[in-house]
Amino acid sequence: MSASHFAQPAAAPAAQPALIGLDWGTSSLRGWLFANDGAVLARRDGGPGILGVADGEFRTAFVGFCEPWLSGQPDLPVIASGMIGSRQGWREAAYVRAPAGFPDSATGLLALDDAAGRPWRVVPGVLAVATDGEHEVMRGEETQVLGALGAMPAGGRDGLFVLPGSHGKWVRVQAGRIAAIRTSLTGETWAALRGHTLLGRLCVDPDPADAAAIALAWQAFDLGVRQAHAQPGALLHLLFRVRTEGLFGRLRPDQLPAYLSGLLTGAEVADGLAWRATDTTPPVLVGSGEQLQRYTRALACLGVTAIVAPPDRAAAGLHAIARAAGLIGSV
Amino acid sequence: MSASHFAQPAAAPAAQPALIGLDWGTSSLRGWLFANDGAVLARRDGGPGILGVADGEFRTAFVGFCEPWLSGQPDLPVIASGMIGSRQGWREAAYVRAPAGFPDSATGLLALDDAAGRPWRVVPGVLAVATDGEHEVMRGEETQVLGALGAMPAGGRDGLFVLPGSHGKWVRVQAGRIAAIRTSLTGETWAALRGHTLLGRLCVDPDPADAAAIALAWQAFDLGVRQAHAQPGALLHLLFRVRTEGLFGRLRPDQLPAYLSGLLTGAEVADGLAWRATDTTPPVLVGSGEQLQRYTRALACLGVTAIVAPPDRAAAGLHAIARAAGLIGSV
Repeated sequence: MSASHFAQPAAAPAAQPALIGLDWGTSSLRGWLFANDGAVLARRDGGPGILGVADGEFRTAFVGFCEPWLSGQPDLPVIASGMIGSRQGWREAAYVRAPAGFPDSATGLLALDDAAGRPWRVVPGVLAVATDGEHEVMRGEETQVLGALGAMPAGGRDGLFVLPGSHGKWVRVQAGRIAAIRTSLTGETWAALRGHTLLGRLCVDPDPADAAAIALAWQAFDLGVRQAHAQPGALLHLLFRVRTEGLFGRLRPDQLPAYLSGLLTGAEVADGLAWRATDTTPPVLVGSGEQLQRYTRALACLGVTAIVAPPDRAAAGLHAIARAAGLIGSV
Repeated sequence: MSASHFAQPAAAPAAQPALIGLDWGTSSLRGWLFANDGAVLARRDGGPGILGVADGEFRTAFVGFCEPWLSGQPDLPVIASGMIGSRQGWREAAYVRAPAGFPDSATGLLALDDAAGRPWRVVPGVLAVATDGEHEVMRGEETQVLGALGAMPAGGRDGLFVLPGSHGKWVRVQAGRIAAIRTSLTGETWAALRGHTLLGRLCVDPDPADAAAIALAWQAFDLGVRQAHAQPGALLHLLFRVRTEGLFGRLRPDQLPAYLSGLLTGAEVADGLAWRATDTTPPVLVGSGEQLQRYTRALACLGVTAIVAPPDRAAAGLHAIARAAGLIGSV
């Protein structure tokens, strides 16, 4: 990977739990147990997303997921971000309007379930209205962006943050506040095309143990990125090439998933780079795993070196917003 | 609809069956019984597409579908176009290479099942290789294009033909021969997004009896077409607007399917118009039903008046190719 990483702060030892943070999305729930200074004392993955919670029993789902942390301290304050604060979640937390930074997110926290004996707060999503009236929104990503901002080198209060996903987000931060958002339906389109078209049936996943096949797949990914960038209005046409390149043996079946991914990722990245206009600071990628690798590589294909944010930016953002809101004391 | 139609030739009475024509695609089979002069004596719809024929029993499927026509004349010649001539069909008919017109399709006919006592021929698909090496293909659409060409005013041997569908085809004809092809995965992408994304779940089909709702849906379609044209590299971003426009009540749920369709149709049409470059002859639309209406309207939104070919161009093309091949006698 060609991108540089931030230096990651060393975790200071701190034994006393002070806060539970939750990243509670549509299809997943992750949690962290924080010390007052932000050190992560414990973490849990694999909880139910909001679609996996039956009959609105969110409190039951929360207590079940955090039981080991609550048993000793049932009054630990809780802060959550993500779709838990949407209409489909526990209760809707009204969007705060861009430009929005730490003070706005902290002020906008929704007190959700404090009656149960512990402060239980939800980070509001951010709404950005463009000059042409276009509405853009995020829920959960604002917390990651603010968490990434906190990890930027001293003085870094401006930048372009890129969060790959089902709905890929490009986020412009100015003077420490989220100023503009651009979302692309990249991941969801990928899944729909891969899973539910004749095109998808031509795709064969490469053998992960076959290094030569993996290298060829990345070549096909790069080809897709470059074609999508070179022909910006031709995405639907290029998608048909997944079929013809396979049909005429110009790409192997186990190159086709990467080629398809390259076309879609390339289309998003080319659009995002055009959107950033004259901003020449390196984009900051916030994410993990192979998805992060794809975006780093797509940007590199188009001559742009990205910075990769440290992992777990949601955790960092949750703790920092809780601190800004006074939900936990200062260090 | 703003487009003009060709004059349709009046059917001359002719009692004697001379040819069976089949348009046998992936998911459907249609047939016509022709007199020698091309008059349609009978037609049938609703036969099984090649994916609906079990165990390669294509002859059985054919005989079952055409039984009423074969009972009196079991030796009637048959000509078929479409995916029946693909690797997944009865047998593969090698593509003829563009530029390809009537003589090439006639010469390239595959004799498939003549041993059963009747001439049984398949129209080959067309392969076009662009200067950059890109391969483009069609199977079935070449027959419709040649059929539309036959209906053009005298002297019309050049033009741009547009065939909406799962795989929308734009076809450049020069001197009576198919010279270049550009395919977009529009219909298949539409179906995958509509049926298999969260986006699709927000879409509510308008009540066909509610004229006001239908008018509003067409307005949303036009909006999508114009946005896709104005922002050629932004399709994945615009797709997310289906969500936000609904979320903020800027479009009604029963406008969202049309808006999504407008974005995709607009992206294809804008790309096709860019591809036709300096050609200013009106595009000829070959198709039927609401799909035809969508493309006529999308072109009109972008200031282009289309010509609509008469219906059943597949039938006209099948008869004309059979004549060119000598499968039936001259009138």
